[in-house]
This record gives sequence, C-alpha cells and structure tokens, in this order.
Amino acid sequence: METIRIEEKILAKNDELAVANRRRFDAAGVWVVSLAGSPGGGKTSLLERTVPLLAGQWRVGVLEGDVETDRDGRRLAALGVPVVQIITGGTCHLNAGMVQRALERMALDQVDVLFIENVGNLVCPASYGLGEHRRVVVLSTTEGEDKPLKYPAMFRRADALVLNKVDLLPYVPVDLAQAREHARRVNPGLRIFETSCATGEGIGEWIEWLSERRESWKSAGSTG
Amino acid sequence: METIRIEEKILAKNDELAVANRRRFDAAGVWVVSLAGSPGGGKTSLLERTVPLLAGQWRVGVLEGDVETDRDGRRLAALGVPVVQIITGGTCHLNAGMVQRALERMALDQVDVLFIENVGNLVCPASYGLGEHRRVVVLSTTEGEDKPLKYPAMFRRADALVLNKVDLLPYVPVDLAQAREHARRVNPGLRIFETSCATGEGIGEWIEWLSERRESWKSAGSTG
Repeated sequence: METIRIEEKILAKNDELAVANRRRFDAAGVWVVSLAGSPGGGKTSLLERTVPLLAGQWRVGVLEGDVETDRDGRRLAALGVPVVQIITGGTCHLNAGMVQRALERMALDQVDVLFIENVGNLVCPASYGLGEHRRVVVLSTTEGEDKPLKYPAMFRRADALVLNKVDLLPYVPVDLAQAREHARRVNPGLRIFETSCATGEGIGEWIEWLSERRESWKSAGSTG
Repeated sequence: METIRIEEKILAKNDELAVANRRRFDAAGVWVVSLAGSPGGGKTSLLERTVPLLAGQWRVGVLEGDVETDRDGRRLAALGVPVVQIITGGTCHLNAGMVQRALERMALDQVDVLFIENVGNLVCPASYGLGEHRRVVVLSTTEGEDKPLKYPAMFRRADALVLNKVDLLPYVPVDLAQAREHARRVNPGLRIFETSCATGEGIGEWIEWLSERRESWKSAGSTG
C-alpha cells in the first residue's frame, strides 16, 4: 500500500525533527507541554487560566497552532507572555518542522515553560510528536463519554487528560465516570483532571501537577 | 515540496473515485447527504432524530464512519434501517474508496436517501469528496462562534450548516449571531439551521430542507 509507505516516511522525518526539538528544549532548560483536542474543547481557555497562575513562578511562552487566523494567539499574547502563532494554512496538525520554524521567533533562553497548543483535531495530532516533554489531551464534557474509545490514539499517547467544561454537567447527558473509565481502558497511566475554565474549578489541581512535573524534570537533569 | 505533490496525487485519485460513486448513486436513484464536524458535535444524534422522520417518506440507509468502534453504527442500526459501519482504523477522514467498499454491503436498490457520517474532524474530511450530493457540517454551540473562521475549508465546501445544541445556549458564552455571520463570511450561500437534538428544536425545518432538496434533485433527473 503506497499511501502507508509515504505516511511512514513523513512520520519518520517528523520523529527526527521532534528529537532535534527536544534536544534544543533540554539544552535551553525549557520544559514543554503540548495540548491537543477537538475544536472548541477549551484548549485556549485552559491556557488563559494556566499562564497567569504559572507566570509568577516561571517565565512562560506559548506556540499557538491554528489552521487559519491568529485569534487564539492574540488572546494569549494579551496575557503579556511571548506567543508565536503558527498558521498551518490547511494542515490538520502541527508537526515538528513547524515547531522548529516557530522557535526561530521565540527566545528560548527567556522561557522556562513552553506550551504548544495544537490545531483542534482529536485524530491527526496524535501521530506527530513535536519534541514536547508532556502531552495533554483536552476533552470537553459536551463531547460525550465515548470519545476515548472512538479516538484512542490521542488518549493512548497522552500523559494527562483534562476533562473540561464540568460546569455544563447539569445540562448535558454525559457520564463522567464512564468517560474516565474509557480513558483509563485506553491508557491506564493517564492522569485525569476535571476542570471548568468558566468557573476555575479544578484548575488548582492541574497547576499543581504542572508545577510538580516541571520540578521533577528539572531535578532529574532536564532530560525526560 | 514532495509532501504536497503526494497529497495532490491522493486527492486526484480520491476525486476520480468520488465521481464513480456519484454515478453509481445517480444510476440507482439514491440521494446522498454527508455529515461532518468535530467529535461530539451531535452528528449521530442528528441522524437519530432525522432517520425516523424521513423513514415514512423514503427508504433510508446510513454509512457510518469512525476511527474505532461500531458504537455509532449500532445506535443507528437500532432505528431499523440498513447501516454499514466503516472503521478507518486510525485514518482521520472517510475517502471515496472507503465509501466504494462499503457500498458492496449496502443494497442501493433498496435505498432512496443515504446518509454518510464522517469521522469526527473539522479539518481533514473537507478535502475528500465522497460522491455525495449535499454536504452538511454540524457545529455545536459549545464549540464557540469562531470555528468557521478558524476551520474555513469545511464551511466553504458545505451546502448547509447545522448549529446544534441550541438548548445549551443559556449556559455557554457563545454569540450565535456571530457564528452565523462568520459562517456566511466564509460561504455566503450556506443554508443554516439551528437545532437541538436533545429537545427537537429546529429539527422540523431541517427535515423540510432535506425533503425539498431530495424532491428537486429527483425532479431534475437525479444528476446534480
């Protein structure tokens, strides 16, 4: 099957560039977390909550990925941190090469924690490592409890799941316990947070996890 | 750029197969509507509302696309209509070849209206015509009003937009008028419906549109 061979070649090339990005992050002492998930699940809103809470402790930067428009980049730049907007121009995911090019415009020696927000897509971004240290998938309660089973790759490859929009639980027919169970079936080691970017619920626990992970990465010598 | 050339070759091959599918649909007198949109936006729920209302008038069939699991296919088969579940096994969109293969298991001479539900993805399915007569994009109110600008291809290539989950409007910070305005900026001819599959709101107007479109296609000689 020719299509598959081509895909493998693209992925192998991506993996090489991801390794190079990772080396560069490690050398600069920058801890990198990527966020992926469906359109409208709350990735940008989560960063709007997260960045100000981390900014007292660390210097934060953001690479913001979108198919079109710099709307999300502008939302995050308004927080007063360095942001590079990557517009993929139709491509359904970020890849390591796009991140590499974006880094030309981000002064890594002035950043401790870098967030990379992917294009809204629960499928394709799973296949493309970017060199990040931790991968986070954001799933909105409104999307239903079956998504980890229907889109398993993203959940399998993530370190943490943020179940966002819990403030809407009274109004949507979703079984959150089942969502967690489905996610753990796909990835037993997944760390799960339940948040509302509207009310701030659960954000504290998420910030604590980021802080701990960043600390233990730093004390382990910034390599894993 | 090698990647782009390969993509063009894949798309050209897809377009050929889509034309073949369309000929087959036309020859069999089957009117075909595809649904695409983000995961959890309500595509399957919309079909659960739609199929019983059309089934008195026409014989309805469904091709159901998912990355993994036959959960949605089983939900729709429970309505008593023929359903073929297509599991893409990781691929982020249906293509015309997958539809062609699925048709081996669907008796087109016993179907008047065929729905094809795509994988939940607001990006990739836009590029792959399936041979359908009408394309519909389903967007949930919870996804926010900016999605037509951020994911324009899907909205540009659609004939109709179903703005679903209007029952959640009191609880989500979305400006529906702006969502409509953004969608029309990308595609001035887009027909827009506002629905709730939870309450049934707006479903009547959507059914009416489908019925009218099906009739006018039939009376025009089943070719456009």
